[in-house]
Amino acid sequence: MIRFEVDHRSGNARVGRLVTPHGTVETPAFMPVGTAGVVKGLTPRNLQECGAQIVLANVYHLFLRPGIETLRALGGLHSFMGWPGPLLTDSGGFQVFSLSPLVEVTDDGVVFKSHLDGARHLLRPEGVVDLQVDMGVDIGMVLDECVAGNAPVESIRASVARTTAWAERSLACRGGRDTALFGIVQGAVDLAWREESVRQLLPLQFDGYAVGGLSVGEDPATTRTVARHTVALLPATVPRYLMGVGRPVDLLDFIAMGYDLFDCVLPTRNGRNGSLFTWTGRLAVRNAQHARDPRPVDERCTCYTCRHFSRGYLRHLAVSGDMLSGVLNTMHNVHFYLELMREARRALSGGELDALRASIADAYGEEGAGTHVD
Amino acid sequence: MIRFEVDHRSGNARVGRLVTPHGTVETPAFMPVGTAGVVKGLTPRNLQECGAQIVLANVYHLFLRPGIETLRALGGLHSFMGWPGPLLTDSGGFQVFSLSPLVEVTDDGVVFKSHLDGARHLLRPEGVVDLQVDMGVDIGMVLDECVAGNAPVESIRASVARTTAWAERSLACRGGRDTALFGIVQGAVDLAWREESVRQLLPLQFDGYAVGGLSVGEDPATTRTVARHTVALLPATVPRYLMGVGRPVDLLDFIAMGYDLFDCVLPTRNGRNGSLFTWTGRLAVRNAQHARDPRPVDERCTCYTCRHFSRGYLRHLAVSGDMLSGVLNTMHNVHFYLELMREARRALSGGELDALRASIADAYGEEGAGTHVD
Repeated sequence: MIRFEVDHRSGNARVGRLVTPHGTVETPAFMPVGTAGVVKGLTPRNLQECGAQIVLANVYHLFLRPGIETLRALGGLHSFMGWPGPLLTDSGGFQVFSLSPLVEVTDDGVVFKSHLDGARHLLRPEGVVDLQVDMGVDIGMVLDECVAGNAPVESIRASVARTTAWAERSLACRGGRDTALFGIVQGAVDLAWREESVRQLLPLQFDGYAVGGLSVGEDPATTRTVARHTVALLPATVPRYLMGVGRPVDLLDFIAMGYDLFDCVLPTRNGRNGSLFTWTGRLAVRNAQHARDPRPVDERCTCYTCRHFSRGYLRHLAVSGDMLSGVLNTMHNVHFYLELMREARRALSGGELDALRASIADAYGEEGAGTHVD
Repeated sequence: MIRFEVDHRSGNARVGRLVTPHGTVETPAFMPVGTAGVVKGLTPRNLQECGAQIVLANVYHLFLRPGIETLRALGGLHSFMGWPGPLLTDSGGFQVFSLSPLVEVTDDGVVFKSHLDGARHLLRPEGVVDLQVDMGVDIGMVLDECVAGNAPVESIRASVARTTAWAERSLACRGGRDTALFGIVQGAVDLAWREESVRQLLPLQFDGYAVGGLSVGEDPATTRTVARHTVALLPATVPRYLMGVGRPVDLLDFIAMGYDLFDCVLPTRNGRNGSLFTWTGRLAVRNAQHARDPRPVDERCTCYTCRHFSRGYLRHLAVSGDMLSGVLNTMHNVHFYLELMREARRALSGGELDALRASIADAYGEEGAGTHVD
């Protein structure tokens, strides 16, 4: 199914390769977010040119639209979206709890209302695994229960226990089928419950472990504390995935802690909003100061956008409301995130991650925050 | 500046080449509409892959936004929009009359209010020429006065006379500068006034002649009558451009009459709306019947969209409202229009235009209508 190989270590961080049925992913890796089977505005060719080696999609969204029967009829998710490389799907646990106007959780599964049309649906852990196997993704995530960061301890205990029970059922359901499965550590921002969640999940021997339920509104220092504490408990032999994170400087910090995989909507959402990432900080492309600026967004950048267009033209597209604006900005931002990961891998191999971190922190300060939903 | 060479004639139609400072355009040619310096949603690379050899932009729109100072600062229109090939700009005469909430025409020029912010502007024929020279376009159009198809004869007479006077001033202003200029024949739907407009313009010896003021609401039979009558009066040695037209079958009819150049918003606007042109007729991509259809939009088509995506996926993108929907649909439609012109050139060379016309008419019937504004 998948194979994870570590080539180099530097402190807790590592550089390696995740080998999947659809190709190899160099780690640490950033996964552009293609929630509904499309990274908004980008073609698979655009993604490849940006350097994407793996794309993330979302079971909750794809289950509601276009639905599994359509995905089956169209040859699975790879064929559907025209992406030939590795695919990871989030289970949609987070989306059920954040998007549905009504959620009922039982030990059996979760009943929710579609945010699209209000229809009631039941997702069980087994159903989520079957969906991912049917879609043909390389890596699936188990259904988990998310609780708010400020949830009472009894809720945290219950969600950890339920997430573990669902994890066991997910693995049993997967059986010998050819889809890797990652477990998801929960426990809100309570270090003891994070430890307990890990303790319950480790014996199940997932193909990788994710840390979920972070970067959902808690303060950034707390995110770091919980992420650092938790990653140290996870096995070094499998990929460790921090879900829904984050800003450029965050990624470097979490890489230093030992995480290997990341996803975040920031590059895509900010691209659509005209907020561009550069090696010298953010650039708000609609600002009037760019109107007659012939320079590319970033002199160092080699993306299609920076090789062909000026800040002045990109501002014109943004102000004109042309859809090409969102496309070109998204291309640039996704390229930036993927280049940041390439730089991080290079820096790690040369023992220079701290220097890279310092230069990014200098460019970005501590503004902004990661977020989940695209 | 430009050179027009006819390689083959078939009845009134001809196959040739328009050689410009930025490259050669095979004629008959369709010019994708890039009103504000962008063919909505498409990159220059997309356009080249679709087979575009020339792109149209619009002085009225570019004058208002981003403005000539910005275009100068960013190296002219080619550099601004990243399009290396030939560019033709419409003068904006039509847009002044159709978009401005208030228009005052005098012999000197036209005062109008920006449809963007209500600011008053004056455009004089000389100013329009200067703008086009400054933008560095290959072919500019003179400022003309458009009147409604049902205008009284005195209005038609006045607009023809003014268009001629402006045409003379435009040429005088251009002088020896390196931008080709096309005159525009007016005269509403009155054949006698079309004749008079041609009679007045021909001595000016423009680099090409356009027929304006058609496909603006009159019935299609009238469009054809006026277009056919007028083209026969224009010199055979220069390109003949029918502005703002049309549906696929229209293009073939007007090619048969002897027109060489066309522009129309149908492929781009319909692309954004999910109405796709195919060799077997229109396809409404949002229709539920396409949801699980693994076939491309058109089995014969070699565009990026048809080579990579199913009808089912394109429907999903359209229903999801992803901007990639508009991009992929526009790519397909523009490719279709340009392929139609390639087919027309091939058919003309082989004496088979009638057969091509019959097959397109069979696929499309007589539905739909061309229109100007993108």
